[in-house]
Amino acid sequence: MTSSMSATSFLERVRPPIEATLDAILPPQNQSPQVLHQAMRYSVFAGGKRLRPSLCLAGFQTFRDDWESALPIAASIELIHTYSLIHDDLPAMDNDDFRRGRPSCHRQFGEDIAILAGDALLTLAFESVAGAPHMAADRIVGVTRMLGKSAGTVGGIIAGQVLDLEAGESVVGPEMLESIHRAKTGALLAASVSIGAYLAEADEDQLEIAAEFGRKIGLAFQIVDDLLDETASFSTLGKTPGKDREQGKVTYPAVHGIPVSRRIVSEVTGEALASALRLGPSGSLLADFASHLEARVR
Amino acid sequence: MTSSMSATSFLERVRPPIEATLDAILPPQNQSPQVLHQAMRYSVFAGGKRLRPSLCLAGFQTFRDDWESALPIAASIELIHTYSLIHDDLPAMDNDDFRRGRPSCHRQFGEDIAILAGDALLTLAFESVAGAPHMAADRIVGVTRMLGKSAGTVGGIIAGQVLDLEAGESVVGPEMLESIHRAKTGALLAASVSIGAYLAEADEDQLEIAAEFGRKIGLAFQIVDDLLDETASFSTLGKTPGKDREQGKVTYPAVHGIPVSRRIVSEVTGEALASALRLGPSGSLLADFASHLEARVR
Repeated sequence: MTSSMSATSFLERVRPPIEATLDAILPPQNQSPQVLHQAMRYSVFAGGKRLRPSLCLAGFQTFRDDWESALPIAASIELIHTYSLIHDDLPAMDNDDFRRGRPSCHRQFGEDIAILAGDALLTLAFESVAGAPHMAADRIVGVTRMLGKSAGTVGGIIAGQVLDLEAGESVVGPEMLESIHRAKTGALLAASVSIGAYLAEADEDQLEIAAEFGRKIGLAFQIVDDLLDETASFSTLGKTPGKDREQGKVTYPAVHGIPVSRRIVSEVTGEALASALRLGPSGSLLADFASHLEARVR
Repeated sequence: MTSSMSATSFLERVRPPIEATLDAILPPQNQSPQVLHQAMRYSVFAGGKRLRPSLCLAGFQTFRDDWESALPIAASIELIHTYSLIHDDLPAMDNDDFRRGRPSCHRQFGEDIAILAGDALLTLAFESVAGAPHMAADRIVGVTRMLGKSAGTVGGIIAGQVLDLEAGESVVGPEMLESIHRAKTGALLAASVSIGAYLAEADEDQLEIAAEFGRKIGLAFQIVDDLLDETASFSTLGKTPGKDREQGKVTYPAVHGIPVSRRIVSEVTGEALASALRLGPSGSLLADFASHLEARVR
């Protein structure tokens, strides 16, 4: 597919159907148990950028045009992302009072409901992948495995969380830092692109390139987040800035300093662009996503 | 299939392969992040009876002989059960210090690791269902939906947890009590039987009977648990007895008294037996499971 659209236009175009799909997947908030469904919706509709589902759809669009068919699975990835944020914010974890400019889920609904709302979003993600209409069973099984791995304990989100918690207690070198970032944020971002390409039935070589691209932008994205935590304001960030440093979190600016961190973002983004270009003209949308994500930090 | 085996013999026979399958599914405890994999194994290998995977295999055995092929999926159900126990025990939830005679996961590993270990077991359950060998993709998709529903917010485990938390704050009548028990414990027990029958390719009528049987024993099982909490010792129970009452939990003995609760167990077990008998001679194994579960309270 030739994708002449810019990342910005694509994000604008896919956002309303992503929101509508999330709304359709989530139980209504007047359905029992109401407080739980309210908490799930509170966190899912807190104004996220929907980057992961958009990347999934962009990965799909790179190889096939009818990205609408991938919407239920793309939306499920956002549910997993939201669950990880809710649990990450808990008092026993990062203890964050704010998320996207509003009280975090446990501040709003209590710790018990926040734990269960996270559990529920994770469960619903897998259930709704399995219930995705017009999707071949073997693709659904493949997506479930990819999602499980990227959310899991071997190089996935949970591995990243544990390594991140442990890092607060010791000196962390550049290699461990990269591992943490790749797991905690990179794995699900990379899986988003890969799942889109996989659903569009990209071939083996194309899937490997899409995965490589995803790993690169996943890493770059988290380094940019680290930089923004140092340099942005509460209103830009939607949460307390400088919190990473205050909590002794291991970040690129802490290990490498701000100028070198910016240079690493440029390098990794360059590698992502090179991967996207290996896909020929159809890779232009993904290439523009890489530039778009880097530009956040300028 | 004619299943002349007793529930006790069947439980003894399937237990070693269930343990071996769980061991194969769980990452080794020396794999990074070690503390997390240790916590997952600590809770999974805490000496549970493996009732849910055994019921899944019994549901399978009722319609087909080669229950070994259902082991990976049966074991995944135990992972979901274990995740729900870990999160249920957390300080923000039931705040239980003991589980199966040992410190609960958060007492042993800290609250952060316990939250993540629960998350990880839930994630791994879905991932390993999707990775089950020799299983048709459409069956895997069907199982994923059944598991998601039984663990979820609409009549599943999480719904039961929330209703249970809310029940502590108000007077609960017999109908709400039954709903809580059906969701919190009954849904996954019922799904265990249904998933086994579904994997063995039971027909629509047989599946409906298996589901009905599962709902009955699921309810009976939880009422028996309520009764044991009132009448058993720490060593029998592996956790602090009388805790339900102390926490103001809504239980059958609290609402109906002990004698009526016992009578309800007998009635519901009788209904389960009637369902099992509708399957003809092949229903004898399930029928014996119903009697076996009731006998715990005598």
